[in-house]
Amino acid sequence: MIKVGIIGVGTVGESVARILEENQDVISARAGAAIEVKKGIVRTLEKKRDVDIPLSTDVNEVLEDPEIDIVVELMGGVEEPYKVVTKALRNKKAVVTANKALLAYHRYELAELAKDIAFEYEASVAGGIPIITALRDGLSANHIESMMGIMNGTCNYMLTKMRDEGVAYDAILKEAQNLGYAEADPTFDVGGYDAAHKLLILASIAYGIDAKPEDILIEGIERITQDDIAFAKEFGYEIKLLGIAKKEGSEVELRVHAALVKKEEMIAKIDGVMNGISVVGDKVGETLYYGPGAGGDATASAVVANIIDIARSGKSTPMLGFDRPMEGKLTLKDADEISSKYYLRINVNDKAGVLAKLTKIFEANSISIETMLQRPGESASANLLISTHCAKERDIQKMIGEIEVLDFVNKKPVMIRIV
Amino acid sequence: MIKVGIIGVGTVGESVARILEENQDVISARAGAAIEVKKGIVRTLEKKRDVDIPLSTDVNEVLEDPEIDIVVELMGGVEEPYKVVTKALRNKKAVVTANKALLAYHRYELAELAKDIAFEYEASVAGGIPIITALRDGLSANHIESMMGIMNGTCNYMLTKMRDEGVAYDAILKEAQNLGYAEADPTFDVGGYDAAHKLLILASIAYGIDAKPEDILIEGIERITQDDIAFAKEFGYEIKLLGIAKKEGSEVELRVHAALVKKEEMIAKIDGVMNGISVVGDKVGETLYYGPGAGGDATASAVVANIIDIARSGKSTPMLGFDRPMEGKLTLKDADEISSKYYLRINVNDKAGVLAKLTKIFEANSISIETMLQRPGESASANLLISTHCAKERDIQKMIGEIEVLDFVNKKPVMIRIV
Repeated sequence: MIKVGIIGVGTVGESVARILEENQDVISARAGAAIEVKKGIVRTLEKKRDVDIPLSTDVNEVLEDPEIDIVVELMGGVEEPYKVVTKALRNKKAVVTANKALLAYHRYELAELAKDIAFEYEASVAGGIPIITALRDGLSANHIESMMGIMNGTCNYMLTKMRDEGVAYDAILKEAQNLGYAEADPTFDVGGYDAAHKLLILASIAYGIDAKPEDILIEGIERITQDDIAFAKEFGYEIKLLGIAKKEGSEVELRVHAALVKKEEMIAKIDGVMNGISVVGDKVGETLYYGPGAGGDATASAVVANIIDIARSGKSTPMLGFDRPMEGKLTLKDADEISSKYYLRINVNDKAGVLAKLTKIFEANSISIETMLQRPGESASANLLISTHCAKERDIQKMIGEIEVLDFVNKKPVMIRIV
Repeated sequence: MIKVGIIGVGTVGESVARILEENQDVISARAGAAIEVKKGIVRTLEKKRDVDIPLSTDVNEVLEDPEIDIVVELMGGVEEPYKVVTKALRNKKAVVTANKALLAYHRYELAELAKDIAFEYEASVAGGIPIITALRDGLSANHIESMMGIMNGTCNYMLTKMRDEGVAYDAILKEAQNLGYAEADPTFDVGGYDAAHKLLILASIAYGIDAKPEDILIEGIERITQDDIAFAKEFGYEIKLLGIAKKEGSEVELRVHAALVKKEEMIAKIDGVMNGISVVGDKVGETLYYGPGAGGDATASAVVANIIDIARSGKSTPMLGFDRPMEGKLTLKDADEISSKYYLRINVNDKAGVLAKLTKIFEANSISIETMLQRPGESASANLLISTHCAKERDIQKMIGEIEVLDFVNKKPVMIRIV
């Protein structure tokens, strides 16, 4: 009999308790043991909950209970759960968490603390998709060349709806909020931060690289309009919020931003709230993992899979998948040095000579134009939709700075990278 | 230092040795140990090989070498490798195999023999895609409701080409043979047997169900023509060779056949030689795994991942993912009882009254027609392309038998199931 304590009994915590109960036939057969939730820790006992497990508000009733083998951390936040799981590990309890923010900031300290005890976190990236298992165990023979993922269902839902229904960003955001796909303050999702947390976790497994959210390029989808979607349709692209990791030589670039992806790519075919992550290994080539990235039961499916793993074999794999440095010294590439093709939307006053002046600036910055589309904008303005050949982030940003201050340019140009 | 013996040094065996050499930086960091191929066993020493490992023709130089920890079986066949891996397990050596035929026939005996020692087989299903790991470890919290997979790259390549280039089955088969995607005798691939072996392995992990290839419905793609592809286009389907497992109550249906799949389904979007497997769990919902299903390096990627797993932790999971019966008694559903929608192509003499007679037979068999399309056939014949509502396999087969002998019907009707 394996005993579990759940710290944080919200939507996911309730699902974990319910799955352990409802699916105990397959779970005990697969785990080789019965698994029981001995206690759930909550902030308040007032609230009615959907599951029948003993509850307490005192976290130490889990952390210091010698009968509890596995602590499931579902509190949310960073520093408070860090203290809790640290104490759990010190008390020789295995830990399972779904907390991506905790890992985005503390995964290396935790890997150190969890050298001899299991610390699992399948649910922290892409919810129900077993991407951690796939990357850490299934693809372990490979140097990972690149990863590209739709890791935020809210953004993918919004972008899919904008494409299919032709409605504006603000209207879709409101709808997503009403459906519970987006928070009242949606910045964490639509600003790319949620995806960045997940990308950092995957990048540690793939490359052993240490970086925090503030170290990498993070942009969201807030400025995307129907003009951009029209451009994408015209030139055979889909617009996706992607987390991207790419190794070149001894450098790894990590970035989260909206991107134009060729329609034929598998990752471009992932619509709605679903997540998908494409991983390219030097030996296996491209593999892709698709499924629900959020939701109580889908997330809990991953949490319970970790519990079963631990019940089966205790600690079977180093937390991040390696226990010594992997490929010489891989370092994080300076965001300025990232090279990409770009799409620019520039809103200009629709008068003679504008195009000549603009193209001159492109030329002066050695950025060459691949395609151009002009669409009418509001009140005597025009939107120039331009795609470029490969250029460096530093150069494109410098050029955007120059364009932005021109008297015939109405607002800061919108830039979307093309992958 | 972990020492490996490879039995069968063909394309995959060479790739395994090469990956262990070329990627040793990441492999040793992930495995927590250096891994070395101590010996390769071959049928003949005459042939020049691409890797530099000690070779011998005597299998006992691996099986009886006390220094060898892991035996990699890549011989092919069924009974000979069964003897070899049995001996390896008895000698307390962990086994890694890519041999789906071996597992299609002997997986339960092997699970018994491998109770205390690792026996891994990631490469046996869908090559480089870590589907065994995903299903056995990543989705272990779920009752698996269904699985649907494109598990044969040869068939998928051929069907994609037939769709995109409008050419006939025979021409594409010849091309696939020239490219090395299909064997001189292609029956194993195009007849669905290869996919069936893989499906049986997945069904054991998902359901614990024991069946052999001869117990289940297996059909291939040999009779598909451009008429069928035209029908699929007209009604928004793709034609795919699928391995399907579905649980209903205490019964599991297992079948391999060409199928019409709605274009919007993720599985329908998988083109060319790639494989993809969709798994629906009761808690997680649908997840899908995509990647290369064959090729030396992709297959070897999975073999080496298993070697790394074993080096990390010895035996961490029961071979089939469970060590006691799972869900009461799940039994194999009688193929006659399988229910589906069907598409029929009936080649008839193009004369008056034919349609009336045919539809009468449908009615007499209580099979109701959903759509019908008539296309001209060769020399005064017509092809009737008919889709039905749900019916049982037994009833549709009986009706096809009745139709087949009608004097105005020119050849045995072609039937494709709709999923």
